[in-house]
Amino acid sequence: MVLYAPTPTDTFDRLESEVRSYCRGWPTVFKTGQGAVLTDEDGRDFIDFFAGAGALNYGHNPPEIRQALIDHISAGYVTHSLDMMTVAKRDFLETLSSLILEPRGLDYKVMFPGPTGTNAVEAALKIARKVTGRQSVAYFTNGFHGMTLGALAVTGNQYKRGGAGVALSDTVALPFETFFGEGVDTLDQLEAMLADQGSGLELPAAVIVETVQAEGGVNVASPEWMRRLSAMCREAGVLLIVDDIQVGCGRTGTFFSFEDMDLPYQPDLICLSKSLSAYGVPFSIVLLDPRWDVFAPGEHNGTFRGHNLAFVTAAAALREWWTDGALSSGVADRALLVNIELERMRDAYPDHFTEVRGRGMIQGIVCADPSLADAVCALAFERGLLVETAGPRGEVIKILAPVNIDEALLAKGLGILRSAVDDVIAK
Amino acid sequence: MVLYAPTPTDTFDRLESEVRSYCRGWPTVFKTGQGAVLTDEDGRDFIDFFAGAGALNYGHNPPEIRQALIDHISAGYVTHSLDMMTVAKRDFLETLSSLILEPRGLDYKVMFPGPTGTNAVEAALKIARKVTGRQSVAYFTNGFHGMTLGALAVTGNQYKRGGAGVALSDTVALPFETFFGEGVDTLDQLEAMLADQGSGLELPAAVIVETVQAEGGVNVASPEWMRRLSAMCREAGVLLIVDDIQVGCGRTGTFFSFEDMDLPYQPDLICLSKSLSAYGVPFSIVLLDPRWDVFAPGEHNGTFRGHNLAFVTAAAALREWWTDGALSSGVADRALLVNIELERMRDAYPDHFTEVRGRGMIQGIVCADPSLADAVCALAFERGLLVETAGPRGEVIKILAPVNIDEALLAKGLGILRSAVDDVIAK
Amino acid sequence: MVLYAPTPTDTFDRLESEVRSYCRGWPTVFKTGQGAVLTDEDGRDFIDFFAGAGALNYGHNPPEIRQALIDHISAGYVTHSLDMMTVAKRDFLETLSSLILEPRGLDYKVMFPGPTGTNAVEAALKIARKVTGRQSVAYFTNGFHGMTLGALAVTGNQYKRGGAGVALSDTVALPFETFFGEGVDTLDQLEAMLADQGSGLELPAAVIVETVQAEGGVNVASPEWMRRLSAMCREAGVLLIVDDIQVGCGRTGTFFSFEDMDLPYQPDLICLSKSLSAYGVPFSIVLLDPRWDVFAPGEHNGTFRGHNLAFVTAAAALREWWTDGALSSGVADRALLVNIELERMRDAYPDHFTEVRGRGMIQGIVCADPSLADAVCALAFERGLLVETAGPRGEVIKILAPVNIDEALLAKGLGILRSAVDDVIAK
Amino acid sequence: MVLYAPTPTDTFDRLESEVRSYCRGWPTVFKTGQGAVLTDEDGRDFIDFFAGAGALNYGHNPPEIRQALIDHISAGYVTHSLDMMTVAKRDFLETLSSLILEPRGLDYKVMFPGPTGTNAVEAALKIARKVTGRQSVAYFTNGFHGMTLGALAVTGNQYKRGGAGVALSDTVALPFETFFGEGVDTLDQLEAMLADQGSGLELPAAVIVETVQAEGGVNVASPEWMRRLSAMCREAGVLLIVDDIQVGCGRTGTFFSFEDMDLPYQPDLICLSKSLSAYGVPFSIVLLDPRWDVFAPGEHNGTFRGHNLAFVTAAAALREWWTDGALSSGVADRALLVNIELERMRDAYPDHFTEVRGRGMIQGIVCADPSLADAVCALAFERGLLVETAGPRGEVIKILAPVNIDEALLAKGLGILRSAVDDVIAK
Repeated sequence: MVLYAPTPTDTFDRLESEVRSYCRGWPTVFKTGQGAVLTDEDGRDFIDFFAGAGALNYGHNPPEIRQALIDHISAGYVTHSLDMMTVAKRDFLETLSSLILEPRGLDYKVMFPGPTGTNAVEAALKIARKVTGRQSVAYFTNGFHGMTLGALAVTGNQYKRGGAGVALSDTVALPFETFFGEGVDTLDQLEAMLADQGSGLELPAAVIVETVQAEGGVNVASPEWMRRLSAMCREAGVLLIVDDIQVGCGRTGTFFSFEDMDLPYQPDLICLSKSLSAYGVPFSIVLLDPRWDVFAPGEHNGTFRGHNLAFVTAAAALREWWTDGALSSGVADRALLVNIELERMRDAYPDHFTEVRGRGMIQGIVCADPSLADAVCALAFERGLLVETAGPRGEVIKILAPVNIDEALLAKGLGILRSAVDDVIAK
Repeated sequence: MVLYAPTPTDTFDRLESEVRSYCRGWPTVFKTGQGAVLTDEDGRDFIDFFAGAGALNYGHNPPEIRQALIDHISAGYVTHSLDMMTVAKRDFLETLSSLILEPRGLDYKVMFPGPTGTNAVEAALKIARKVTGRQSVAYFTNGFHGMTLGALAVTGNQYKRGGAGVALSDTVALPFETFFGEGVDTLDQLEAMLADQGSGLELPAAVIVETVQAEGGVNVASPEWMRRLSAMCREAGVLLIVDDIQVGCGRTGTFFSFEDMDLPYQPDLICLSKSLSAYGVPFSIVLLDPRWDVFAPGEHNGTFRGHNLAFVTAAAALREWWTDGALSSGVADRALLVNIELERMRDAYPDHFTEVRGRGMIQGIVCADPSLADAVCALAFERGLLVETAGPRGEVIKILAPVNIDEALLAKGLGILRSAVDDVIAK
Repeated sequence: MVLYAPTPTDTFDRLESEVRSYCRGWPTVFKTGQGAVLTDEDGRDFIDFFAGAGALNYGHNPPEIRQALIDHISAGYVTHSLDMMTVAKRDFLETLSSLILEPRGLDYKVMFPGPTGTNAVEAALKIARKVTGRQSVAYFTNGFHGMTLGALAVTGNQYKRGGAGVALSDTVALPFETFFGEGVDTLDQLEAMLADQGSGLELPAAVIVETVQAEGGVNVASPEWMRRLSAMCREAGVLLIVDDIQVGCGRTGTFFSFEDMDLPYQPDLICLSKSLSAYGVPFSIVLLDPRWDVFAPGEHNGTFRGHNLAFVTAAAALREWWTDGALSSGVADRALLVNIELERMRDAYPDHFTEVRGRGMIQGIVCADPSLADAVCALAFERGLLVETAGPRGEVIKILAPVNIDEALLAKGLGILRSAVDDVIAK
Repeated sequence: MVLYAPTPTDTFDRLESEVRSYCRGWPTVFKTGQGAVLTDEDGRDFIDFFAGAGALNYGHNPPEIRQALIDHISAGYVTHSLDMMTVAKRDFLETLSSLILEPRGLDYKVMFPGPTGTNAVEAALKIARKVTGRQSVAYFTNGFHGMTLGALAVTGNQYKRGGAGVALSDTVALPFETFFGEGVDTLDQLEAMLADQGSGLELPAAVIVETVQAEGGVNVASPEWMRRLSAMCREAGVLLIVDDIQVGCGRTGTFFSFEDMDLPYQPDLICLSKSLSAYGVPFSIVLLDPRWDVFAPGEHNGTFRGHNLAFVTAAAALREWWTDGALSSGVADRALLVNIELERMRDAYPDHFTEVRGRGMIQGIVCADPSLADAVCALAFERGLLVETAGPRGEVIKILAPVNIDEALLAKGLGILRSAVDDVIAK
């Protein structure tokens, strides 16, 4: 089926801003997507180990929910509804409640802050500040939370921060668990700073954390560290915001990335987006402890809070994948395959790779030299694999395939990766 | 066609955050939408004079482009692509260029900043600051530009600003053309402030302006004022950002709201969103003068910049409505009907209404007492009309119907409005 | 009496920072000072129409209080006492209370914030923010309040502001009474902004004002404007801070510059410094309405809050000059002489001078071209008169002689000024 | 000699702000001061182990320089001169250059930023930001640099910071050498943060440091740590500001506290104040590497920059004490006495005292329980000794006697302290 006429190949150079980025590493024009495979307009297939930066946990255009989307559109159901009530929104709310929140014993109200992750983070920060009356929010080194001014202020990356053109204030960076390496307990240090009235660290309104820092280089927080962080925040009257935008929705095996961590308190606020819509369409929610449901009507708003196509696909996805444990066990199996392969690479090239790390279907292998990571990804693309780097210097090759990827495809993709590694290093 | 099972009626109270707002004034559950009509699950029809706060200029689910959307989905074309190249994105870029930019003699690069208006505003602010090396951005009283921290800092409304919980800095408010009423030329005052080195007004990186302030109360900038603003900015080396999110895409008759104003210079940056996707799905772009295409690759990013469903619907809409002048002339006709009716109301109740104002299909009638506006909207809802208030005190009844609304429906809606006005005042 | 040996003449160039300024316009090395006369090391006398930028209202080294200073030092009384209690401090407090506050029916507590004007302003801003819980403070165009970060943020001058190197936040500039010229009532505009919730003007903690803007160009607030400002602030719950640092202590004839304005409410906070010590030594106080005495012990501190030499000279000055009305009536007489002379100049050169303005012993004549002001001051220096420019472009020749200057000296100085004007214009 | 009449004893309660602090712990009215002894109006003597918080290193009213002060005043030399040239200023500049800078091989320009320490810090921060074009400045935990907004933003104490009433931005706190205790090298951590582009630590304009944190609790930086800090700053292009306001001018034995540390580079900027005037009168300078002498004329100013009484006393002090090594060796002797006594106390009460620390004539003993420190100081006052607490919880008893205190007096004071400790603990 041909929907789009061929056009001059220089369109993007000519018309699109220089800010575009991924298209530079993957210089082809994509046409169709199915599961873990993208196909370009010349018919070339690419195995996708990037999965929309975590937005496509269930793969491209999952057939299990496509029909629900088409049916909604065909029947003329409401598409755009601001924060009015619609049948599709109600269905999403009920499904989320009955399939996700209730079975996990979680008690949250749902806020629709606008359809992107950064909208969710901005809303969560506002709430935390309103609840506590404090201004500062703490974030972690190499945390990544978004590009709008409030979210950018809790993002560690200097290159991104520099884009703001203004001072990013009312936030403070704390070292992530692994930041100073072995032997330094970063929460001991945080505890010392909170206890010392001269530390310059004012008591923050909230701490925002990713349990696995994806963009930041696949840095994994341990359950012990997360438990202590949860307890410390509660004791100090600081809200804990879990940004599960990139590693929620099954990426680590469970729906929430912290589910199996036995946290002493449920997070005060949770941000979800990316794979929540399950179909790659914009969608985002904030889950808020009912005690923190303090916004007055309309105090935060936005045009696309009522994106009903996303309500449809998100609810369908919850019904499809979150009524039993099949997806979770599948994730564990696939993660093992990835891990074995990465460990094998590291063992094969101990001078080139310093570490393998990750949880579930987000894993990375750390290159001693970032240029190795670049070269491997470039060669992988030529051989039909989309894989990207992460980390402050781009030193981590990050494996972020759909969590339900067919195992044969996964194996094939890992094979391409291995061959790329071998050939780059051999050069 | 029944896609969604009935569920407990208290779903929204029970599960959704208190921040929800429009649903409080319009307490019913909507199911389907077609053109200017929304239908609730009990089969009740409502004429929509709100049009998704300007996101549905072409009405709900316009049939002219629905098939393109379904075809794209059915054929398995890419839905989510970050900033990778896709056939649908290319088609959108070429269509925008050939149907909109070239015929108008406009020279812009296109940036995809994320799919919401506030993403676009944040990106535009970053660019202006990077280009100029200055930090401050000037905005106008009662301007409304978004809810994320950077955009909120250029939004006048205190209630919204207060939601931030932190000081909103690096911005300065200037009086809009009409703010001080007759006899005060606000650009004379701005000129005086820029000329006096002790005015406390540091030279801003940019001025951001809506040609019609919609949320702010249907405040209309005159062409003369806009021309002088454009010239003053250029002379001072200040970038002019036109936020055409709410009144672009045909709301005033032309595609851009400033098209017929004969500005001496094309705006440096233009933000578009809302009706750009034409189908109510999230979408946003920034048009930037090629000289200001200064972001380095990836300096601003976001997960949902490559929302291909929106590329499809947006391109289809440009082809459907922007190849001839039919839509524009239709807007003029309908706007006249609206204006005549509002003038009639004001003349009928000179004690209750102080002014009628607007341009094209955004018009408002100003109530002496905001409670009148509330009461009229509430009664209109009961009688099958969705219409909302605007302005700093909610004192303006704002008519924002789809720009291509059937004239009979428009007349019917205006009739409901008139009857609501009569009955509220009679009480 | 020779205390200082002659040294290389290039000392200042060689050792002092380039930031030095006044010495560039008055390139000689001063040795002694007495009353309105400074004498350089070559024995040349200069009539001083600058008076330490308002710090020497009673002239250099006034003999009336010199002995008190010498006696205190000779007797070994405490010089430095932080905020400990001393006999000299008690004497100052009692004298201020009995000679200044009580006779005027003013009820204030006295805070010693550090010995400079900017310390006083910073303390006043802190108090206003603590009292109200708000962050923003409003100041006026061409206001000048100090060089430390908080005070600089309420100073209009861009050149000074630019020195901060960071964004100056939590403040907002309002137009001073005379800023937009005849026909614009700036308080009408402020009222409109406060009334409109979309104006972007958040309710400030305080408004800080000079009744005569000295550095800003000798801009004089009228009693009517000040009364209305006082009433508006009180009604809105905004604190009114009068910065009387430069024009208090008799500069306008009365001790406080607002005394004869019949304000409806006493200012919430008053900053005094400069001539308060009467001898040119650093000293500053904040007078605070007892309701706003909200600092906890030590919440603001500073090493030189207990400068006992200043306690001595300040108390001596109050006893010397503020027990009867002689000083005030003398100021009126001298001001008239100044005013007559300046009016005469303006009348003589209507193309060169646009306006004469001032109150009491701070008066200015506005040059159409700032270069005239510079040239006049330079020539005056050559002829034995120290006089400086003010205003955002340095366009105002400012007459700021000691308020008790001998009338013959005053006449002589005015004669030099007149001859300099004549000769510069004649060139 | 009676200069001040007795007055009601409630003067301070009635007239002075609640912010006053030291007077609460030392509730008597002081009259005269000589060397290390203050005498109240009832004739009671107090040995002063506080020395004006470091402003009286040479004791109260040192006779060696009193006559110079009286002579200057008596002869009618200029007292107040803004930044004009005077004979006294020239003498100070030449004396500083020849007696302090040249012999130490230091190359600095001298800036007079206003007469208090916080003025100096504010000026130094401005310069660092202007030189580098960066905004952020790093300071250390428990650093104390002043009470005006810019200086407060680099001060660690939360109580003081809270007084600002606004967010303190453009600064970042780093852990001081000793902050995390043994085993953590805080500069290793800083190095890691600077090296990692995702650490959230933007490259600062400057680092500001006290070599001994006085207010912060007598925390002593080691020469090794200071050397590495100096090298790290230079390598990163970050300016190093040494705030020697409290521990310069001989407090540690040398004129500058870092003199004997063999720093690889001279500090870029040095702030001096407090004991610089040697007589307790307000005075402050910034020493700036000639490369950083970047302020334009008048870009920073202030009324009391030309405090000639301080020029006189400061120059006299340099001549008196800094032409040979007598003062330094005396400091070493006295410091040993203090240290022996404090160590003895700690050994006697190991459960009550955790640590003795300090350098030269600033030493402290750390109490396990801050209430012990309070009680000891209170009892010491009753017995004729002024001594204060320091540290974030007030847990350190700080010995800060004049550096030239008579050894018998020192011994007597230490005896009082010891008896107070014994008696408090015995209770």
